Amino acid sequence: MARIVMKFGGTSVANVERIRQAARHVKREVDAGNQVTVVVSAMSGKTNELVGWVNESSPLHDAREYDAVVASGEQITAGLMAIVLSDMGIPSRSFQGWQVPIHTDDSHGAARIVDIDPTELDKRMADGMVPVVTGFQGIAKSGRVTTLGRGGSDTSAVAVAAAVKADRCDIYTDVDGVYTTDPRIDPKAHRLNKIAFEEMLEMASLGAKVLMIRSVEMAMAHKVRLVVRSTFDDPEAPQVAPDGSPGVPGTLVCDEDEIMEKTIVSGVTLARAEAKITLRDVKDKPGVAAAVFGALADESIVVDMIVQNISDDGSVTDITFTVPDSEYDKSVKALEAARASGAIEYARVTGSKGGAKVSVVGVGMRNHAGVAAWRFKALADKGINIQLITTSEIKTSVLIDDEYAELAVRALHTYYGLDRRDA
Amino acid sequence: MARIVMKFGGTSVANVERIRQAARHVKREVDAGNQVTVVVSAMSGKTNELVGWVNESSPLHDAREYDAVVASGEQITAGLMAIVLSDMGIPSRSFQGWQVPIHTDDSHGAARIVDIDPTELDKRMADGMVPVVTGFQGIAKSGRVTTLGRGGSDTSAVAVAAAVKADRCDIYTDVDGVYTTDPRIDPKAHRLNKIAFEEMLEMASLGAKVLMIRSVEMAMAHKVRLVVRSTFDDPEAPQVAPDGSPGVPGTLVCDEDEIMEKTIVSGVTLARAEAKITLRDVKDKPGVAAAVFGALADESIVVDMIVQNISDDGSVTDITFTVPDSEYDKSVKALEAARASGAIEYARVTGSKGGAKVSVVGVGMRNHAGVAAWRFKALADKGINIQLITTSEIKTSVLIDDEYAELAVRALHTYYGLDRRDA
Repeated sequence: MARIVMKFGGTSVANVERIRQAARHVKREVDAGNQVTVVVSAMSGKTNELVGWVNESSPLHDAREYDAVVASGEQITAGLMAIVLSDMGIPSRSFQGWQVPIHTDDSHGAARIVDIDPTELDKRMADGMVPVVTGFQGIAKSGRVTTLGRGGSDTSAVAVAAAVKADRCDIYTDVDGVYTTDPRIDPKAHRLNKIAFEEMLEMASLGAKVLMIRSVEMAMAHKVRLVVRSTFDDPEAPQVAPDGSPGVPGTLVCDEDEIMEKTIVSGVTLARAEAKITLRDVKDKPGVAAAVFGALADESIVVDMIVQNISDDGSVTDITFTVPDSEYDKSVKALEAARASGAIEYARVTGSKGGAKVSVVGVGMRNHAGVAAWRFKALADKGINIQLITTSEIKTSVLIDDEYAELAVRALHTYYGLDRRDA
Repeated sequence: MARIVMKFGGTSVANVERIRQAARHVKREVDAGNQVTVVVSAMSGKTNELVGWVNESSPLHDAREYDAVVASGEQITAGLMAIVLSDMGIPSRSFQGWQVPIHTDDSHGAARIVDIDPTELDKRMADGMVPVVTGFQGIAKSGRVTTLGRGGSDTSAVAVAAAVKADRCDIYTDVDGVYTTDPRIDPKAHRLNKIAFEEMLEMASLGAKVLMIRSVEMAMAHKVRLVVRSTFDDPEAPQVAPDGSPGVPGTLVCDEDEIMEKTIVSGVTLARAEAKITLRDVKDKPGVAAAVFGALADESIVVDMIVQNISDDGSVTDITFTVPDSEYDKSVKALEAARASGAIEYARVTGSKGGAKVSVVGVGMRNHAGVAAWRFKALADKGINIQLITTSEIKTSVLIDDEYAELAVRALHTYYGLDRRDA
């Protein structure tokens, strides 16, 4: 017997028929003798409708009222799920955030979970019930309803799993797991059995939008084993892991230690529409980076890759970084304004839009010499020019011309041994 | 300065534009120096949508989950109303039933309000805020959300008004007050300045569906002065009572003592599609009425008028009563089955569908001899045959042939002096 938290996202509960499909997954786990708590999102589209009404009421609305309105979406799904489960013979009841209670801070609209009292949930599960908890919301010390911000239901699920000490937190969504790369770019992509938290974090931040970064961070901190799996699989079919062995369908996101056979690289990701900006001959003095990126932060521009070379003689240097294409013009203007005001000294600003960032992610890279060199060779073999390189402990990224993007992904995917065995 | 509870029904908050219109009424009262608490229903159509989902999930659902789902409707409106009010410069915040708290019993789906703690609302109003309370819902001792049943928002408003000792509870709806009769039947109908609670109760139960009976009963018990008025009136227009004098637009429902100039009759109401059933030669013995109406109650048939004559010799009698036309066949079958089983003894059952019940209501009838006689004369003058008569202290009803229905209403309306002065 295991204790499982099962989380269903918006598309998985989009209407009553889909809620029933989701409930069949719950029934399978209960019939197998597991203790289950369910966490649900709002029906897909519902939150947007509610947010639309709030904005129509006033663009400058009180975040506390936004929360009161928007939290109603999950409340509806939780009640309906409890009804459907009971109808299938599984005793169930819904819990709103304040009923659990899920305590959060008072940052309305983007609250952080402070603490979850597991007493009620533990008691219900011990009694053979399936509690259904509203995701995305909690209650502040003030007694007011809070929401966690978009995608917060994943975070709720992980937090609930941590609180009830679940063996697993299954995230049911519309994809069936985490792939080595986007199968639309490389048909040889394969679904991973397991991926380490750190890798998933890098993958998530690089555009593999399967899980919210926040929920992965929380899972890592509390060592909650996450499974990404599809609601649309046949609930009654035999449970088979991605590699074909009996097991949990989907990708397990877990502690590195749990992954016996470590591959060097777990995935290759691609982010497009990255603009590159270079400041030439920046006067190199303490605080110059802070001045440059401070000027951009003031305009709410999010900077991604940053490269600063050591200056030859310690007097001037070049700083290059990337921003989304859509922020390119605004960024250049901000930097020119900063020069005009004397905040930064540099000779000129150059750059271009339309770059592609290709990254390889893998905890195995930490211990393997030559991994970076392999990458350069893989790209050089295809005649792809590298414009920018950044590295972290388990990830390296290169910026290249967009027309080579898919080619580069496929080359790296093959090079790091990620191609499907049968491909 | 007065303290006012303002309640807005579903059509008054059907969308954000209407919520804004409703908020302008609130602003007028606040600007006039009044303390205001607002009570809102769900957007019209919203509750039906939610109930639809619940029934689709399972026709045999847990009423507690029904409540959890359906209560979300008012939560949305309350938040939006608070946002719109704040946007107009009126400090406001929403309160869900459990936040006030509004304590109810645990009869989910049809809960009764046990107690409302006025502390929070009093405090907010004293601070110059407008609390916006979700109608229709509360919290049971178990900590679960309850709903009061259809039309419960009126009841919530009255209960809140009683708790905060409001001077007035204004029920904003899509009609502008209570009329002496249906203006579509008699163009000479006029809107009443005031009507006594008892009269309103009889009017409501007779089909003038302006206020839920329950809310009027509660208002009478707690002496809460109710005003029925229209949301669609221009909020900034001068406030004029129905008789043209300066005052509150709409009809005040209040204690009889507050109505200085008592008219004998306040209104004439009409209910159609009433079927008449007579049991002939019923064996007259103790418990016979209980046996007859028990047989009907077992089939969930609601009986309206009942007439039983004294039997000549104490051995047999006739019992006549009315049911909705739609229940006629079922009623006859139930009575025949009861005779077959020996539960009731009677010679035969006769009856017909399509009757019309015309009633006159007025507290003044209590003290005026001859009022009933007037009615018979009014109808006789028009050649209308009376099939059945029932009377209560402040109401008399007659059952007549449907083709005379409008004629009878107009005749009585004129006869009791209710015609508009200018008509």
